Amino acid sequence: MKKIKIEAAELLEKIREKKPVVHHLTNWVTIYDCAQIVKVMGGSPVMAHAKEEVAEMAKIASSLVLNIGTLTVDFVEAMKIAAISANEKGIPVILDVCGAGATRLRDEKCVELLHEVKIDIIKGNASEIARINGEEVRTKGVDAAHVSANLKEIARELAQIRKATVVVTGKEDIISDGINTYIVKNGTPKLTEIVGSGCMVASVIGAFAAVENDYALASASALVCFELAAECAAKKAKGPGSFKEGIFDCLANLDKLTINNKQKVERL
Amino acid sequence: MKKIKIEAAELLEKIREKKPVVHHLTNWVTIYDCAQIVKVMGGSPVMAHAKEEVAEMAKIASSLVLNIGTLTVDFVEAMKIAAISANEKGIPVILDVCGAGATRLRDEKCVELLHEVKIDIIKGNASEIARINGEEVRTKGVDAAHVSANLKEIARELAQIRKATVVVTGKEDIISDGINTYIVKNGTPKLTEIVGSGCMVASVIGAFAAVENDYALASASALVCFELAAECAAKKAKGPGSFKEGIFDCLANLDKLTINNKQKVERL
Amino acid sequence: MKKIKIEAAELLEKIREKKPVVHHLTNWVTIYDCAQIVKVMGGSPVMAHAKEEVAEMAKIASSLVLNIGTLTVDFVEAMKIAAISANEKGIPVILDVCGAGATRLRDEKCVELLHEVKIDIIKGNASEIARINGEEVRTKGVDAAHVSANLKEIARELAQIRKATVVVTGKEDIISDGINTYIVKNGTPKLTEIVGSGCMVASVIGAFAAVENDYALASASALVCFELAAECAAKKAKGPGSFKEGIFDCLANLDKLTINNKQKVERL
Repeated sequence: MKKIKIEAAELLEKIREKKPVVHHLTNWVTIYDCAQIVKVMGGSPVMAHAKEEVAEMAKIASSLVLNIGTLTVDFVEAMKIAAISANEKGIPVILDVCGAGATRLRDEKCVELLHEVKIDIIKGNASEIARINGEEVRTKGVDAAHVSANLKEIARELAQIRKATVVVTGKEDIISDGINTYIVKNGTPKLTEIVGSGCMVASVIGAFAAVENDYALASASALVCFELAAECAAKKAKGPGSFKEGIFDCLANLDKLTINNKQKVERL
Repeated sequence: MKKIKIEAAELLEKIREKKPVVHHLTNWVTIYDCAQIVKVMGGSPVMAHAKEEVAEMAKIASSLVLNIGTLTVDFVEAMKIAAISANEKGIPVILDVCGAGATRLRDEKCVELLHEVKIDIIKGNASEIARINGEEVRTKGVDAAHVSANLKEIARELAQIRKATVVVTGKEDIISDGINTYIVKNGTPKLTEIVGSGCMVASVIGAFAAVENDYALASASALVCFELAAECAAKKAKGPGSFKEGIFDCLANLDKLTINNKQKVERL
Repeated sequence: MKKIKIEAAELLEKIREKKPVVHHLTNWVTIYDCAQIVKVMGGSPVMAHAKEEVAEMAKIASSLVLNIGTLTVDFVEAMKIAAISANEKGIPVILDVCGAGATRLRDEKCVELLHEVKIDIIKGNASEIARINGEEVRTKGVDAAHVSANLKEIARELAQIRKATVVVTGKEDIISDGINTYIVKNGTPKLTEIVGSGCMVASVIGAFAAVENDYALASASALVCFELAAECAAKKAKGPGSFKEGIFDCLANLDKLTINNKQKVERL
C-alpha cells in the first residue's frame, strides 16, 4: 500500500470546462440531490426515464448513471434501453446497486443489468458489493464460500469477473478495475447520517467518468472531491440538515490547492 | 384534562439504539424529507414500491408508513401488498390520509385500505380525519350528521370503529386509541408554512411505533419530539427554507432534558 | 423600449390573501421545490397525477402547472385530462416545455399538448421556446428559416400563433402575449448554477396567474418577485446549497417596498 497523489483537481477542472451531460435513471428519493450535485460541479444533469426517449437522451450524454433505489420492473427495462444506447455510443455506464441484498427483485435485476448490458462502473457499499459478487459467483456455479474474503479482494475479483471498475464505499473507499486498486481515506462519519450520500457519489462518479477514460482514476477522483466537500461541510454544520446543504456549497467552491493537499489516496 | 409527562425521551433513545427499518410507500413530493427525518433520528428509512418486492421489504422492516399524497391505483395496490405482509409480521402500519376529501379517488382508496388491511395508526389533519370518519360512517350506513361533533370525539370514535390509533394534527394534536386520548400542544405555526410537515410527522410516528407497542403513546411521543425540533428550528430560522433545514438539525440534536422539560402533553 | 413599474407587489399580496390552489403535474426532480415555492408565497400547492383524479383536482384549483421534465406517455395523458378540466373551468394552464428539443418524444408531446388542449402560458428558456416555435412553424408547413430571428420576435410570434402568453427565461426574461411584450431584467447568474430555477419559475407564474387574468402581467410580476428573492438570496449565499434555500426565505419575506423599488421591467 503506498500513498499517492492523483490528479483529481485537473479532472474537476475538466468537468467545469466541458460541462458534460450526465444522464440519470435514478431513484425518486434523492433524484434532486443527484441532479444538484452534478450541477454544482459544473456538469449538466439530465433525468429522463421514458422508454421512448432514453436511448436518444443517452446519445446526447457523456455518461449514464443507473440507480435501482426505487426500482420497478418497467423502470429497469428503461435502464436497459438507455444502457444499450450508451454502450453503442461508448460512454461510461455507472450502476449504483442501491439496496442489493434487500430483496430478490433487487438481486435479480442487478444480475440482469450486469449480464444484458455493459456496466463500466459498479458502485455500492460493502454489503451490497459482497452480495453482487455472491450473486455473480452463484450464477457462475462457483462455490460462494470464498466471498467472505476481504473487501479489497472482493472488489478486485468482481472487477475482473465483470470487466468493470468496482467502487466500494465506506470508511475507506475501495476502487478497483481489476489491475489498479485505489483506497480513498477522505470523508466524515456524518455522511452516514444523511440520506443521499451514496446516491450522490454515483452521480459524481458519473461526472468524472464523463471526462476521464481511466474509470478507476475517475472514480477515485470523484470520491476525493465529494468527500473533501463533505469534510468542509462537516466543519460548518450544526446537524444533518445544514451538513447536507453544505456539501453543495463546499463542492461548488472546492479548489485545486485543497484537493492536492488534503486528498488521502493509496494504491495497492 | 390533565397535564402529564410521557417517556418520549426514552423512546427516542430506543430509536437511536435499535435503528429500526421504516418501510415507506409515500408520495413523490416529500419522499426525501420522509427518509431524511427517519435517518436523523437514527432510524433506517427504506423506500420501495415495486409490487414484486414490497412484501419482502416489509418483512425486514419494523414499521410500514403509507402516504397517499400522490397516489395512483397501481400504487395503492402495492400498498395493500406491503400492508398484508406487515400485518402478517405484526409490525405497525401507519396510514397518512394525505389529501382525503380532495377527490373521490382519495376517499375510495382510503376506505379500501382501511377495510382490506389492518391499519394501526391513521394520521391526518382535522378535515382529512373528519372526512375519513364521515366515509366510515357513511359506509356503515350511519347518519353522518353527528360528524360535526368536536374533533376529540371524532378521533376517539374513529379509533373505536377502526380499532386503530387516530392522530389528528393541528395547533393542538389529538391522539386517541379509543381508550386513551392525548393532546400535544408543542409546535409552531411555521410548520404550516412549509411543505412536508405532515408527511414527516407520519414518518416520525413510524419510527416511534417501531419501538413501542402502545401506539398512542408512540404517536404522542413522536409529535412531542418532532414539534420540539420545530420549535428549536423556528427560533433560528430566517424563513421557511432555513426553518425546514433546521428541523433536521434540531431533531438530530434533541436531548432528553429538553424533551422532559418542554413537552406539553395532556390526557383526557 | 421603455422602463415601467408593474403592480407585482399588489399581486403577491393577493396570493398571500387568497391562497390559491395551484395544481401541478410536474417532474420528479424538483417536485418538492415547485410545491414549496408556491407555499412560501402563501399559495396552496397540490401535486396529483392519477388519471382518475386529475380532472376533479383541477376543478378545485385556481391554476394548473404542467412540466414535462420527466414525462412519460401516460403522464402526458394525465396532463391532457387535467388541462381539459382546467379549460372547462376557465383557469389558466401553464406549460413548462422543460427539455424541449432534447428528444423527439418531448417535441411531439409539447406539440400534442399545444394542439389538444388550451395552454394559456408557455414557458421555457431560449432554446426550448425556439424549438417549440420551430415545431409549430414546421407543423404548419411554414419555412422554418425565419426562426433564427431574434427572441423577442419569436416570443411575440409564438404568442400570436398559439393565442397564449409566452415566457422566455434568461438573463433578460421576455414575456409576450402577442400584443404586450415585457422584459424583466432582475435576477442573478446564480440561478443557472442550481437545479430547479426554471421549474420554480413556472410554479410562481402559476400562483400569479391564479389571481390575475392578464397573464402577461401576471408572468412578468412572477418573474420580478422570484428574481428579487434570488437577488436577496445571492447576497447571503455561500454557494448553491445555501442560495437555493435562501430563495425560499427571501420570497417568503419579500416586501412591497423592495418590489416597487428594485423591479427592472421594460415594455416594448
